[in-house]
Amino acid sequence: MAKSKPRGRTKKAKKLARKIRPAIKARRRATAVRKRPAPKLPAFDPMTLEPRIGSGYPKPFSDRVGRREKRRLGDVAGLTQFGVNLVMLPPGCESSMRHWHRNEDELVYVLSGEVVLVTDEGEQVLGPGMAAGFPAGKPNGHHLINRTRRPATYLEVGTRWPGGDEADYSDIDMLVRIIDGKERFVHKDGTPY
Amino acid sequence: MAKSKPRGRTKKAKKLARKIRPAIKARRRATAVRKRPAPKLPAFDPMTLEPRIGSGYPKPFSDRVGRREKRRLGDVAGLTQFGVNLVMLPPGCESSMRHWHRNEDELVYVLSGEVVLVTDEGEQVLGPGMAAGFPAGKPNGHHLINRTRRPATYLEVGTRWPGGDEADYSDIDMLVRIIDGKERFVHKDGTPY
Repeated sequence: MAKSKPRGRTKKAKKLARKIRPAIKARRRATAVRKRPAPKLPAFDPMTLEPRIGSGYPKPFSDRVGRREKRRLGDVAGLTQFGVNLVMLPPGCESSMRHWHRNEDELVYVLSGEVVLVTDEGEQVLGPGMAAGFPAGKPNGHHLINRTRRPATYLEVGTRWPGGDEADYSDIDMLVRIIDGKERFVHKDGTPY
Repeated sequence: MAKSKPRGRTKKAKKLARKIRPAIKARRRATAVRKRPAPKLPAFDPMTLEPRIGSGYPKPFSDRVGRREKRRLGDVAGLTQFGVNLVMLPPGCESSMRHWHRNEDELVYVLSGEVVLVTDEGEQVLGPGMAAGFPAGKPNGHHLINRTRRPATYLEVGTRWPGGDEADYSDIDMLVRIIDGKERFVHKDGTPY
């Protein structure tokens, strides 16, 4: 069947239609789903990976980060020297308690949404395309908070230090220390959680 | 002054206007420039970094990759254990000659545009949000080619192996070998370029 032509449109309606055509096209492009065959390793679609939800933190800190979703990109590719996580931080959620690592470099790159980066320099809002890096051993605690009403996503890259890593938390009575070869949460006086 | 109200619009024009409102809003959101203060370290805007253009490859291979632009995100943050580059691959350009690393893990994450990943598995098209990873020592040569008419951007992450790294090139008579403590391009019979 032939398409029915729009009839009886006034000049104004036509003019408006012309005006908004680019907007409609832009939206169509933005929401278009490209049909591609499913990738095969070493390529992969990170969104097909099962996310890890939850936290190994002791209470009450686990509540502040527990809803974040992490997809482990490095692992699926068989990498061992560094980890790359695709993280979805829901509204109100924190990436971690504010901390710094003794052995491992860390870098984040924001993909979508907006997060607040907290460091000794204060608070900064980071949007898509912004990055931040944290060298091992530099005692400047950092974490991200999503204070918006939309999810935020970012990539986090971190070294995998052989033998594990220790971390210091800036604002709370907690440390990670390697005890008997394992990373343990302890109070700042050394007593375990 | 009060805004002048639209007058004399027909019902059809109003209906059309209602219909396309989401598209117009979406476009406004997509093209809006958010005013934010310039970030300060440890946060930064990767696009403000001076790109490295060109290649250390010998001729004629340098011509195939020379127009790529690399911005070194890890370096500006003071990281030493791994590198993170924001790479812009112009139309027709290759990321590297097809290669694999002896010591260093590698991972790419596509941000915009479209690239072709070439490995022993063949060719695959990777669009935004797709990733691929290459463990150290696995002899599966890989590289990316931009066969489209638009620039493509991606993040590449690679370990910084103390003492440097060696690489094997799959399709050409070239290797990287550490000679007198430095990475050198040599032919497969060992003679230098």
